Amino acid sequence: MARLTVPIKIRWSDIDGYGHVNNAAMLTLLEEARIAAFWAAPDDGEAPGPGTVLATGEGSDTATLIAHQEIEYLAPLKYTTAPVQVQMWLSAMGGASLDVCYEVPGPDGVAARAMTTLVLVDATTGRPRRITDEERAAWSELLEDPVTFQRRSS
Amino acid sequence: MARLTVPIKIRWSDIDGYGHVNNAAMLTLLEEARIAAFWAAPDDGEAPGPGTVLATGEGSDTATLIAHQEIEYLAPLKYTTAPVQVQMWLSAMGGASLDVCYEVPGPDGVAARAMTTLVLVDATTGRPRRITDEERAAWSELLEDPVTFQRRSS
Amino acid sequence: MARLTVPIKIRWSDIDGYGHVNNAAMLTLLEEARIAAFWAAPDDGEAPGPGTVLATGEGSDTATLIAHQEIEYLAPLKYTTAPVQVQMWLSAMGGASLDVCYEVPGPDGVAARAMTTLVLVDATTGRPRRITDEERAAWSELLEDPVTFQRRSS
Amino acid sequence: MARLTVPIKIRWSDIDGYGHVNNAAMLTLLEEARIAAFWAAPDDGEAPGPGTVLATGEGSDTATLIAHQEIEYLAPLKYTTAPVQVQMWLSAMGGASLDVCYEVPGPDGVAARAMTTLVLVDATTGRPRRITDEERAAWSELLEDPVTFQRRSS
Repeated sequence: MARLTVPIKIRWSDIDGYGHVNNAAMLTLLEEARIAAFWAAPDDGEAPGPGTVLATGEGSDTATLIAHQEIEYLAPLKYTTAPVQVQMWLSAMGGASLDVCYEVPGPDGVAARAMTTLVLVDATTGRPRRITDEERAAWSELLEDPVTFQRRSS
Repeated sequence: MARLTVPIKIRWSDIDGYGHVNNAAMLTLLEEARIAAFWAAPDDGEAPGPGTVLATGEGSDTATLIAHQEIEYLAPLKYTTAPVQVQMWLSAMGGASLDVCYEVPGPDGVAARAMTTLVLVDATTGRPRRITDEERAAWSELLEDPVTFQRRSS
Repeated sequence: MARLTVPIKIRWSDIDGYGHVNNAAMLTLLEEARIAAFWAAPDDGEAPGPGTVLATGEGSDTATLIAHQEIEYLAPLKYTTAPVQVQMWLSAMGGASLDVCYEVPGPDGVAARAMTTLVLVDATTGRPRRITDEERAAWSELLEDPVTFQRRSS
Repeated sequence: MARLTVPIKIRWSDIDGYGHVNNAAMLTLLEEARIAAFWAAPDDGEAPGPGTVLATGEGSDTATLIAHQEIEYLAPLKYTTAPVQVQMWLSAMGGASLDVCYEVPGPDGVAARAMTTLVLVDATTGRPRRITDEERAAWSELLEDPVTFQRRSS
């Protein structure tokens, strides 16, 4: 139904010796997009964006573990001081897990597409904890078809 | 037939606020394993390991672009000063591409499994270049079945 | 006369195994503050902030090399989703160099103080290039006394 | 009397858009040199090198906080697959603190010189703890004159 657009700053140190965003740094950009969209840290005075319900991070009752990630790099992403407008949506919600999809725009179309499977975990016990009704209702608005990978390893 | 075992050092800064290797840093460990196995930089006085044929990196005629990556995190990887013994093999060779598979051991079994699709690129033109006969012969020894992901996003 | 205040986002991966911003990551935060204040990349549609005159980064005629850095860590900086408001000013301008000073606030006072000596370099020749009159005039407004380190190595 | 020589691997992702080791990544290399020289993690089966007495890191009774760092960059450090042979020694020991000095070699002489002031901290209480007699005896062998900075900010 709806995608979030999250502005994420590339850092100069994200660029590697090939002159574009390093393949692993790209996943750091996606991590920052997830945090901007889903974390509401207790010390955060900022108004939460759409989709912000999950309180996680330090001092929270919930931690988010990553179970699986897949990413397709379509074009090198060069350094820009203007933020990258990462698009995010959800393609699935399980009992305790979320499939988060991303499109990272480049100057000439999509630079990368990715999907992350997150598991919500009780920060104290380390065990998966169920998505609450409130979370499920808020996140339902972000449900869409999953990202399609053009070149998937067999 | 054969897997390479590549010792890779975790850095203290690879650990994030959850106290284990950050999800993106894990891909940096895999990048370092690939480099140790496949790059023979012109300035490198070290004896190349098995499978080392590809000369890439700075000052080389070949660059390696990453087209696709998939990774499954099975258990958090904690900091150790002893190197992690990353296992690597190949599951496919195309005309100009390689599918590299990895298993990252943890204290209680496999911590992560991953696959990277690399494309060899002419460093001057930026266009894909064919795997040479010499490379193909050397790398054939590393061919095995692809890694199996337990939890693949639909 | 005047300090710049530059909001800089901590990333989750800046936190290390001790649960606070890693000592080297702190310098990355300062690098990002410098870039926000001083770089005007050609592709940047954002309105430049006060002090933004220097066009550097990729595709620019000027590169900035770091000659010297000094940093004092007064209190651990914890993760926050709200940006850190880094204060910056200049304590000296040479023919081709700048001394940039910083104060990084923490929850209970100053978390870090630092100084960086930058050298402006011609991106083509790699040789130092003089600060222009226009740059000197703009940056003069940022001149202040240098940061004072409480605990300097002898 | 004696310097330690610690081989440290540059990572491909340490290189930034200028094509050499990023200024902050250089401090990560120094951190890894310190760890190799001074940490003896409980899970580490490796024979400790000279000077290794301090047991720190995760699960240890001692944490090491950095109070102050100073670094001078004399020449850009390019990517090499061969490790950099970082030289380390101590220039001072206080009651609970150490001044660690470094020289990082480059292809044409010294690439960087640095000094770090570490404070030993009780991991439980977070308060400084005294250097033990055993540590002091072992580390005394590493005492030398402090590194000399050519270009110190005023």
